[in-house]
Amino acid sequence: MEDWLSRMESKSEQNEWSSGVWDHLTAVRRQSPLVQCITNFVSMDLVANTLLSAGASPAMVHSVVEIPDFTPHIHALCVNVGTLTPEWLPSMKAAAEVASQLGKPWVLDPAAVNCSGFRLKACLELIGLKPSVIKGNGSEIIALSSASRGQTKGADSSHESTDAIEAAKSLALSSGAVVAVSGAVDIVTDGNQVIGVHNGTKMMQRITATGCSLAGLIAAFLAIDSSRGLEATVSAMSVFGIAGELGEAMANGPASLRMHLIDSLYGLDETTVRSRVNITRLG
Amino acid sequence: MEDWLSRMESKSEQNEWSSGVWDHLTAVRRQSPLVQCITNFVSMDLVANTLLSAGASPAMVHSVVEIPDFTPHIHALCVNVGTLTPEWLPSMKAAAEVASQLGKPWVLDPAAVNCSGFRLKACLELIGLKPSVIKGNGSEIIALSSASRGQTKGADSSHESTDAIEAAKSLALSSGAVVAVSGAVDIVTDGNQVIGVHNGTKMMQRITATGCSLAGLIAAFLAIDSSRGLEATVSAMSVFGIAGELGEAMANGPASLRMHLIDSLYGLDETTVRSRVNITRLG
Amino acid sequence: MEDWLSRMESKSEQNEWSSGVWDHLTAVRRQSPLVQCITNFVSMDLVANTLLSAGASPAMVHSVVEIPDFTPHIHALCVNVGTLTPEWLPSMKAAAEVASQLGKPWVLDPAAVNCSGFRLKACLELIGLKPSVIKGNGSEIIALSSASRGQTKGADSSHESTDAIEAAKSLALSSGAVVAVSGAVDIVTDGNQVIGVHNGTKMMQRITATGCSLAGLIAAFLAIDSSRGLEATVSAMSVFGIAGELGEAMANGPASLRMHLIDSLYGLDETTVRSRVNITRLG
Repeated sequence: MEDWLSRMESKSEQNEWSSGVWDHLTAVRRQSPLVQCITNFVSMDLVANTLLSAGASPAMVHSVVEIPDFTPHIHALCVNVGTLTPEWLPSMKAAAEVASQLGKPWVLDPAAVNCSGFRLKACLELIGLKPSVIKGNGSEIIALSSASRGQTKGADSSHESTDAIEAAKSLALSSGAVVAVSGAVDIVTDGNQVIGVHNGTKMMQRITATGCSLAGLIAAFLAIDSSRGLEATVSAMSVFGIAGELGEAMANGPASLRMHLIDSLYGLDETTVRSRVNITRLG
Repeated sequence: MEDWLSRMESKSEQNEWSSGVWDHLTAVRRQSPLVQCITNFVSMDLVANTLLSAGASPAMVHSVVEIPDFTPHIHALCVNVGTLTPEWLPSMKAAAEVASQLGKPWVLDPAAVNCSGFRLKACLELIGLKPSVIKGNGSEIIALSSASRGQTKGADSSHESTDAIEAAKSLALSSGAVVAVSGAVDIVTDGNQVIGVHNGTKMMQRITATGCSLAGLIAAFLAIDSSRGLEATVSAMSVFGIAGELGEAMANGPASLRMHLIDSLYGLDETTVRSRVNITRLG
Repeated sequence: MEDWLSRMESKSEQNEWSSGVWDHLTAVRRQSPLVQCITNFVSMDLVANTLLSAGASPAMVHSVVEIPDFTPHIHALCVNVGTLTPEWLPSMKAAAEVASQLGKPWVLDPAAVNCSGFRLKACLELIGLKPSVIKGNGSEIIALSSASRGQTKGADSSHESTDAIEAAKSLALSSGAVVAVSGAVDIVTDGNQVIGVHNGTKMMQRITATGCSLAGLIAAFLAIDSSRGLEATVSAMSVFGIAGELGEAMANGPASLRMHLIDSLYGLDETTVRSRVNITRLG
């Protein structure tokens, strides 16, 4: 896959993006990367089904005793702290360490990082293990970014993702990770470039675990080419958003949207992807 | 919201109930209460999706270390012992204590309380922490009611909910909780008044976690006005039952019913709710 | 229920099989056996819904402290190691021991047994507790069969189920269990007879937890007549496969297949079952 983001300055930027996204999805389907997910109890089902429908191979292996044997064989890792307990944290750290040491990409989803001091501290420790991508909503990224700078201002309120751009850039620069902020417009930054992904639909927020599933999908896309984390993240967010748009057109509510989203992800074809990718450079 | 159950004696009782149920749902949608759920592994997905589709904000936070930080911010709590282990019980107790101390309503779902002495003892301890509502099926309520009176008669058999009225009243009086008994006719009592909710459909029993989801929904309705636990419980049961009725009309089996139930809950409008509410005073 | 596999040699073998499968499903629906499932976090929802839609009663009771009270009342047990941790293994062993001692059938699903030495050792220990049926894919059965013979050859690659016949026969003879190998053609053997089940559809592999759900269904079928493990396993696999075939005819992708599969399992009628059962003797 070519370095398509670097060619964005050309006249036909949108075409380049569309082509990059489609090539990325095709590669996931062809290579079926093995993605280890240490995720929360609520989302395991949908994360696994999202990965399967995208053509990847999910593995919900979370016991600390299995990580030395298993994690060296994976292609990418996704860690989500949505139902974190002290018992689960060592597994997350152990898997993240193996991934980082072996050069395998991994995604951190700091779900509800604001909900406790324990969770915030755990996420900061995980960020110290060099995630490739950190994906959260505006509140989560602002909280992490502030805490990474030693600030402790509360971050309980809702934030539009566009308000979180500065926080995301700061977190990206301090952590070395690509930072993705989900919202009405998804924001992805490596600290320098800022890309906006305009795909998706509001009703997806009324389905639990769509954010977690997106994190898993980003891991699968990273597995294809971990050296281009920005492109992989943008591609995964666009693909997931397009599947949501197609799903919503058939849905009567959140539960049928959930079904149609997964079916749509499974069935995405080139024409649909190319015509629907909506990515812009924001900075 | 007005005290509509107190106006039940009037000529147009059914109209009052319909109006109360609709007002209650509208308030949930508008206020989007934050409902902490410490529930079983099987039901987390459906409980969260039920709350989201009703307009509430679910939070599956269960670690004992997070409760001091998190639980003070919630609007209601739901505790379900469906996959209880000794490791989870301290979290349930800690959250229930915080909720009770801070005057936040909480619901206990004593799922399968009959299955072990450990679970029965745990539920009795939880009842000591003053739940606002206890919701179970006939067998569960009879077992709890007997055990609360120091009796140990077996309660493994199935009981029609109408047979459980006396047990429910006794448990309500001894615990101070509103007691709800799901069944062909749902029964709700505060120990004095007994209300029957005739909404719902039999096929809902062929979907796992519908009972757990109802408990979560009751918590969301309690969050609106915890001083009227009887009305909140009746309203939530009626709304969930109506969504099930609408869902079954579109369903080909339990899995499509599950989808249509959630979609219907999301889309419920005033005309439908008002015309379908079926609540009667039983005593 | 008659011993229909023993009558297979007759002219109308396929008719016998069809009749046996239908009779078995009918008995599950009528008797609604209580099936304890100690399964992985990913699959609990679908396993429970599969059992409910087949007419059985699932019970996700996994705490070691509840097993002495609860497991004596069950009709069958299903153990799945898909998200195994050292904390869960004692429960699995305790439940398996109670089941074996009381003559209750139990199924072992050695999910992803290859992923760690810990998991392989755990599965071998569980096999020592005399499961009635071991159900896995080709890789899993080959790994277990090799390890049971003291061999440690790697078994990470994919294996067509037909390639695993010898491994399955060997494992069946050494363990005393019926061994089922899922694949393009499902293989079931008691070490002597080898039966092929040709029902099912490839897209079922793109839904997480279908394998786990099948294991649960086998347990429900075993509960009807544990003395005929081969017939129960063949019947459950055929029924589940037929539900998948019917589901796929209505599906647009894996998520709608999942829904239609469960609905179809719920609605299966005699004509459909009899006309679609596709079972052959392979050896």
